[in-house]
Amino acid sequence: MKIYTRTGDQGETGLYGAERVIKAHPRVEAYGTVDEANSALGLARSLLPPTHPDLHDLLERLQNALFDLGADLATRMGSPYEKNIARMDPEDVEALERAIDRYMEESPPFTGFILPGGHPAAAALHLARTVVRRAERAVVALSREEPVNPEAVRYLNRLSDLLFVLARVVNHREGVREEAWLVKRRR
Amino acid sequence: MKIYTRTGDQGETGLYGAERVIKAHPRVEAYGTVDEANSALGLARSLLPPTHPDLHDLLERLQNALFDLGADLATRMGSPYEKNIARMDPEDVEALERAIDRYMEESPPFTGFILPGGHPAAAALHLARTVVRRAERAVVALSREEPVNPEAVRYLNRLSDLLFVLARVVNHREGVREEAWLVKRRR
Amino acid sequence: MKIYTRTGDQGETGLYGAERVIKAHPRVEAYGTVDEANSALGLARSLLPPTHPDLHDLLERLQNALFDLGADLATRMGSPYEKNIARMDPEDVEALERAIDRYMEESPPFTGFILPGGHPAAAALHLARTVVRRAERAVVALSREEPVNPEAVRYLNRLSDLLFVLARVVNHREGVREEAWLVKRRR
Ligand code: B12
Ligand code: B12
Ligand code: B12
Ligand SMILES: C[C@H]1O[C@@H](n2cnc3c(N)ncnc32)[C@H](O)[C@@H]1O
Ligand SMILES: C[C@H]1O[C@@H](n2cnc3c(N)ncnc32)[C@H](O)[C@@H]1O
Ligand SMILES: C[C@H]1O[C@@H](n2cnc3c(N)ncnc32)[C@H](O)[C@@H]1O
Ligand SMILES: [Mg+2]
Ligand SMILES: [Mg+2]
Ligand SMILES: [Mg+2]
Repeated sequence: MKIYTRTGDQGETGLYGAERVIKAHPRVEAYGTVDEANSALGLARSLLPPTHPDLHDLLERLQNALFDLGADLATRMGSPYEKNIARMDPEDVEALERAIDRYMEESPPFTGFILPGGHPAAAALHLARTVVRRAERAVVALSREEPVNPEAVRYLNRLSDLLFVLARVVNHREGVREEAWLVKRRR
Repeated sequence: MKIYTRTGDQGETGLYGAERVIKAHPRVEAYGTVDEANSALGLARSLLPPTHPDLHDLLERLQNALFDLGADLATRMGSPYEKNIARMDPEDVEALERAIDRYMEESPPFTGFILPGGHPAAAALHLARTVVRRAERAVVALSREEPVNPEAVRYLNRLSDLLFVLARVVNHREGVREEAWLVKRRR
Repeated sequence: MKIYTRTGDQGETGLYGAERVIKAHPRVEAYGTVDEANSALGLARSLLPPTHPDLHDLLERLQNALFDLGADLATRMGSPYEKNIARMDPEDVEALERAIDRYMEESPPFTGFILPGGHPAAAALHLARTVVRRAERAVVALSREEPVNPEAVRYLNRLSDLLFVLARVVNHREGVREEAWLVKRRR
């Protein structure tokens, strides 16, 4: 089977199931941005030294979950195809919260905004964090037009917090000094 | 000549030719996103080892073509400036399809979604793939407001498929193992 | 204090001060995109060799200033919280123009579009450049809905020009050859 089907050449595409929508539909924007967030995570992972096996494991699980989320978003609420997918649920969100709690313990206390960057993997985690937040905004925008699984928003929200914490953990472990925002009027 | 002209300080800017539009115009969004896709491609190339001269050549040609596409999008259909540019045409799209066919042969067969990542260059190709898809959505959004060269959409669509294939080729050549999505209900 | 507050789970969030808006509000889009631009800058810095101390210093100052800009955008014009922040001002823009002038002198003359890429840090600077331009469009979009500090647009505009120049300086210093766009009809 060819990867290019030419079926999208008129600017329309398919959701999961047969239904067709314009490529600029907020639903396509939402899962397309989740795909971008997943790719940004992949970049972070590709730059993370193998000396952090726990983080590699965790990032792989997060990438997997973003495909679950992609399938969730690609399937309209109430679609007959719903039975083939497993939507995001409170347990997925709680797993993120447990990971946040665990890695917060490992990272130095913070008291303000941190300049995103440091080790290349940490920098890429910050970038992924901001793309996840863009995905969150896209899902919220979609939810104004059509019903959306509320766990999708919560998942993305917690994920961006986790990525913030992981970026700090990477810098801490790698011995890279963090710089805090120095508010303009105090510089 | 200074690079900063201060002419855009009121939030307007120029298309190719003298015409002025707001910077938030969907046309500026479209070629601005193509510029971002081009930069993501540049990041991928910067991370690609020199041991892949064919891929360097191809990526350079793709970057060049994205400027042709940028000029296409920056020039309204029917503008007097049209005579100075060469719009995207079916031959450009076919060249992409030939490249897809060629590199598909080199990459292992696939049977499902692949976690974006692997070698840093492959990871960056995935990221570029998703930015190209965002550009495709932006061009489709523009086409709802104003006439757009239909080859522009087709070009971006095929380009994202090609980048998917190239990411897989890089991982294959570099001996990086691919991980497939393990659907939640089956994990 | 926990980093996750769960207060945003219904799709709303807080500006600086107590006011709440939907996460898809153009104001949140604007400062969220500035956060993404800041992270892209962080990636560039993480890839920049330590042999460019002047550029590290400059990029750190730019990252700091993007938080000043974030606070500016997060605080509505006329908000009682305005007294706690320092908005972007003409001097911030002039500082950018001085940096552009200084680094233009160090970079080879240019005569056309340049394929974004080269050294990984230069490639990432190009990517940051295009995200800054996306942020500029987001701020202009916001300014159609609500009053915005006009220096915010000017700051982002000049910043993208500076990043273009810095990408070229990095390639020049690192001895990486630049490739210019070869217009299609001339290839
Ligand atoms: C939604 C969707 C997406 C979304 C979200 C998916 C998610 N879950 O996160 C996103 C944007 C990520 C996406 C991306 C891509 N997609 Co897609 N996607 C779909 C769609 C509409 C539904 C997929 C889904 O999630 N189903 C829900 C799950 C539970 O159902 P499933 O049947 O078990 O899903 C399996 C297959 O659908 C899929 N699969 C089976 N064969 C193949 C072959 C390929 C090449 C791929 C990528 C996937 C794939 O793997 C899943 C897990 O086993 C399908 C078309 C359709 N209507 O089914 C296309 C489809 C699978 N996608 C396709 C393509 C080409 C891609 C991209 C390569 C496009 C690109 N250029 O970037 C990428 C690949 C990304 C990757 N990393 O692998 C093609 C595959 C064509 C082919 N067989 O060769 C399809 C069939 C659409 C089409 N007709 O063109 N996609
Ligand atoms: C559309 C456009 C873009 C689009 C799309 C362009 C594309 N083809 O993909 C995008 C968003 C990519 C873009 C980016 C930039 N652009 Co521009 N762009 C234009 C515009 C409106 C038309 C260009 C075009 O495609 N023409 C079609 C071709 C066929 O016509 P051409 O005359 O043969 O094109 C040549 C020149 O326009 C251009 N060129 C000539 N001198 C210079 C000098 C510089 C510094 C640059 C970047 C280009 C440039 O090179 C082309 C190839 O030979 C022009 C202004 C205008 N109205 O002409 C500005 C213009 C060329 N851009 C300008 C600038 C500053 C930039 C950026 C540096 C902005 C930034 N901070 O990111 C980047 C550079 C990107 C890069 N990698 O080099 C300035 C250059 C000022 C100067 N002479 O110093 C111009 C003149 C606008 C202006 N008045 O401020 N741009
Ligand atoms: C606008 C805003 C943002 C914007 C823009 C900020 C900017 N200036 O560029 C952006 C999008 C960048 C942002 C990002 C984040 N933010 Co924020 N942000 C805010 C908000 C609404 C105003 C902040 C501000 O600029 N104030 C103006 C300055 C002048 O006032 P200030 O009091 O002196 O600001 C200081 C503190 O607000 C802040 N601060 C104090 N304690 C802490 C603790 C943490 C963890 C953080 C990140 C900041 C922080 O540091 C500033 C400098 O000293 C506050 C909530 C509020 N209403 O105050 C949340 C808030 C500070 N953010 C928060 C969080 C969690 C984050 C993120 C981690 C989210 C994420 N997952 O990405 C990131 C961190 C980014 C980073 N690199 O450090 C939380 C912190 C919770 C906590 N105490 O643990 C807050 C309190 C919101 C909330 N209730 O959830 N944010
Ligand atoms: C930390 C601050 O970031 C803002 N905020 C909350 N959610 C998002 C999002 N998805 N994207 C950008 N900004 C967001 C709010 O103002 C919050 O208080
Ligand atoms: C692989 C799947 O991706 C979706 N799709 C098609 N075009 C785009 C795009 N530009 N951006 C995001 N998603 C897209 C469709 O649902 C297609 O079936
Ligand atoms: C160099 C060219 O880029 C376009 N331009 C100006 N501002 C932006 C922006 N924020 N994003 C994308 N494109 C922009 C104009 O067409 C300008 O002439
Ligand atoms: Mg397709
Ligand atoms: Mg300008
Ligand atoms: Mg939160």
